[in-house]
This record gives sequence, C-alpha cells and structure tokens, in this order.
Amino acid sequence: MRTVKLTLAYDGTPFVGWQRQAQGPSIQALLEEALARLEGEPVTVHGAGRTDAGVHALGQVASAEMKAGHSVDVIARALNGNLPPEIRVARVEEAAPGFHARFSARAKTYRYVIRNAAILSPFERAYAWHIQDPLDREAMQEAASALVGTHDFSAFRSAGSEVTTTTRTITASGFARQEDPGLLAFEITGNGFLRHMVRAIVGTLVEIGRGQRPAPSMVALLAGGDRAEAGATAPPHGLFLVRVDYD
Amino acid sequence: MRTVKLTLAYDGTPFVGWQRQAQGPSIQALLEEALARLEGEPVTVHGAGRTDAGVHALGQVASAEMKAGHSVDVIARALNGNLPPEIRVARVEEAAPGFHARFSARAKTYRYVIRNAAILSPFERAYAWHIQDPLDREAMQEAASALVGTHDFSAFRSAGSEVTTTTRTITASGFARQEDPGLLAFEITGNGFLRHMVRAIVGTLVEIGRGQRPAPSMVALLAGGDRAEAGATAPPHGLFLVRVDYD
Repeated sequence: MRTVKLTLAYDGTPFVGWQRQAQGPSIQALLEEALARLEGEPVTVHGAGRTDAGVHALGQVASAEMKAGHSVDVIARALNGNLPPEIRVARVEEAAPGFHARFSARAKTYRYVIRNAAILSPFERAYAWHIQDPLDREAMQEAASALVGTHDFSAFRSAGSEVTTTTRTITASGFARQEDPGLLAFEITGNGFLRHMVRAIVGTLVEIGRGQRPAPSMVALLAGGDRAEAGATAPPHGLFLVRVDYD
Repeated sequence: MRTVKLTLAYDGTPFVGWQRQAQGPSIQALLEEALARLEGEPVTVHGAGRTDAGVHALGQVASAEMKAGHSVDVIARALNGNLPPEIRVARVEEAAPGFHARFSARAKTYRYVIRNAAILSPFERAYAWHIQDPLDREAMQEAASALVGTHDFSAFRSAGSEVTTTTRTITASGFARQEDPGLLAFEITGNGFLRHMVRAIVGTLVEIGRGQRPAPSMVALLAGGDRAEAGATAPPHGLFLVRVDYD
C-alpha cells in the first residue's frame, strides 16, 4: 500500500457537503466510489476540511491508502472520468507514509465572497453573498485584523460541534484588494477552524459593516466567548476552501 | 402607452433559450409573465437576439409596450422580485416611441469562451467550451480577422433558418488578450447574425487551431457559401450575448 495526496476543486452547490451522509450526494462518497472503481475494493478518503453543503473548494486536499500499480497520472485521469464535472481532481501525488490530509495540515485558507451591489449577477448567484446595504469597509477591515493571533474562538463556534479545544491560531485575516468595486473577498488563514467559524465571523463582520455593532467589538466577542453575542452565520454559498498547507 | 427598453443578464443553463416554446421555461416567457403581473394584462416583449438553449447574456436588450404609471425603477424592482435569480434586469429605460429591441439594433457583440487546458474548472463547466488539444492561436486569430467586412455568411448558416438575406457586416472579430493563459475569448461585433452563425464560426476556428484546416481557408469558406464545408457547430454554453448597440 502507498499513500496518495489528492488536490481537488468542487462547486458545492449540488452536494450535501464534503462528508458522507445518509441522504444526498457528498463529495467524499463520490470520490470514494470513483477510487473504489479503480481499486476494485473499498477505499476511504480523508479530507482536510469538512466543508458544509453549498460550500465550494478551489484547493481541498484528501488522502487515501491505495494499492501500488497505477501511476498518479492514471489515477487523476480515472477519477476525472468517473466524477461529475462539479468535482475535478487537479493533482494526484505520492505522499509520505502516514500522511493524513486533516491531521498533517499545517494551515488552511478560506475565502468568503460578498457582492455589495443593488443587483446580483446571475453568474454569481451560487458564489457570493448578496448584500444591498452600504458596508463600511474600513470598519470591517479593522475588525478582521483583530482576529490575527491565538484566541479562544468559542464565540464563533457552532452549537453542535464536538472539539476538545476551541483555541486556534490565525496568521492572516483581512479583505483582499479588488479592482471590482462591488466585490469584497475576506480571506483568513489559520491552523484550524471550528465548525461554521468562518461563516460566523463573516456574519459578524457584515453586522459591523452595516453599523449594527462597532469594529472594536470583535475583541470583546473573542474575550467573552459567547456565541449568542456574535453575529448570524453567513450563508454557505459565498465560502471557498482556497488552500491547505503542509510542511 | 409608452415603450420601455430593458437590459438584462441571464445564465442560459436552465432555459430552453430566449424564445417562448411549448416545452420548458424560456427567458421571454418568464419576462412576459413578470411584466403581465405588474401590468395586470398580457405584455409582449421583443428581444434583440434570440439566444439558443444554454446560451448566456451579459447585456441582452428587450423592448415592450407598457401602460404609463410605474416609474422605470419600480418596473426594475418588480421584475427582479418576480424573476428567478438566473435572470436579472440590470436597467429599465424609457425609449422613443417605435423603439424595437431587434429592428432598432445597430450592432450586436457576442463572446465565445474556450478553456484550453487539461482540466475544466467546476466553476467554468457551464460557461466555457473545454478543449484539451493544443490550439494554434496565431492561426485562429488570422482566420478570425478574415471575417471583418461585408460577406455572405451562407457557409455559417443553420439549416433550418428562415432569412431573406445571408449578407452581414462584421466590424470586429478576434480574440481578446487574456492574462489567464488557458483562456481564449473570441469576440465578434456585427450588424446581425444568422442562426448558429457564431457557433459555426467558432467550430471552424477550433478546427483551424487544431491544424485540421489552414487559416486562409476561412476566406474560401466565405466565398464558397457551403455549410457542409465549414466546421461543426460549437456547443452553446461557451456563448455570451455581450452587448447590443443602438443609435
């Protein structure tokens, strides 16, 4: 057996999310089925990030144990031949024994796209959160910057999540410069993210942008650790898993 | 009564095309239903270009006769409230009496997007023609330039089209410069287009790019006027109606 590392992109719109579920197609299940067809036996894949229903990926990473025999190019072609066009395998690589897409990950980067305009283009309807109200971008940038560092993110934790620690280290957080005036792209890099954490942060940033809470309140939210005090969870379809970094 | 000019964008993926048909939803029918709801009586709209099933629009123009009473802003908001998110009305304007979106049009611009790469991104699957073979872009550009001028376009005419003349004047034809190395965007502006004409031209350009026919053959095709001699019709989902110009 050998370990392979798969880098993939997907449009999350038609899926129940990354993780295999009883109802509806998941990216994990489709990938496992495509790998099983190639291997002639069941294969388990581990994803770096368990993206929710409707969340997209530009560079999700998955790992799997496979028999020797097929070259990485053959695996990539076979997978793309057996997967729907909403999921594309960009790269297949040999990985070191013991490589695990989630546990070996050093950092992940997410992007959240907001279209701040009167009308949402039909071509962005599944890829951006549409906000018509004017947004104070300076206040949003100030609040986003306050997330950098090591913090307890309990205030941005989903109710049903089971984790041993809620402390995460964020190394970058802010809005990327855009030539397109109505586009806001929030990017955040960290060593890990709690369930719904990025969407809860974005929901809070938008409330700050609308003037419903002041920019410095982000620091107080982190300190308080109360999910009820933070903003609503932003919709899934603006979120993209951009990249996963490994040593 | 007054005449209104509507500028709209749509993702053609879920529709049977612009024109009302017995089976399946058309953009024209949905627009007429949304206008009828506002007017309280049937409304007929005329589109500048009768885009086929799967063809998109960034700037389609439609005209309609409406009762006085609602401001153009109210009409725009009501339409966007009643149309699916795949169709957005970007602008509603008062037009001169007798304005007709198709007959008053001076020029139309179409764009055809080709993704020339090993893998097609999931986010482009409904918006670009995926070609894996290497393409000779210089030959394609040379052949595209040969279309500028007034020509009989019988060689690029769809079998079932009913028109009185097949002569059209093309004022611009070529590939737009792209920073993205795998992207080819063919843009063509003319005073009118025969049914499937842009897609037949693109199918021929791709055969030239693949080296299946020489670049100068475009001139011979125009002179010969035989549809059987030209290339296959390119798929609809790479095509966008970009803009319609009026005096």
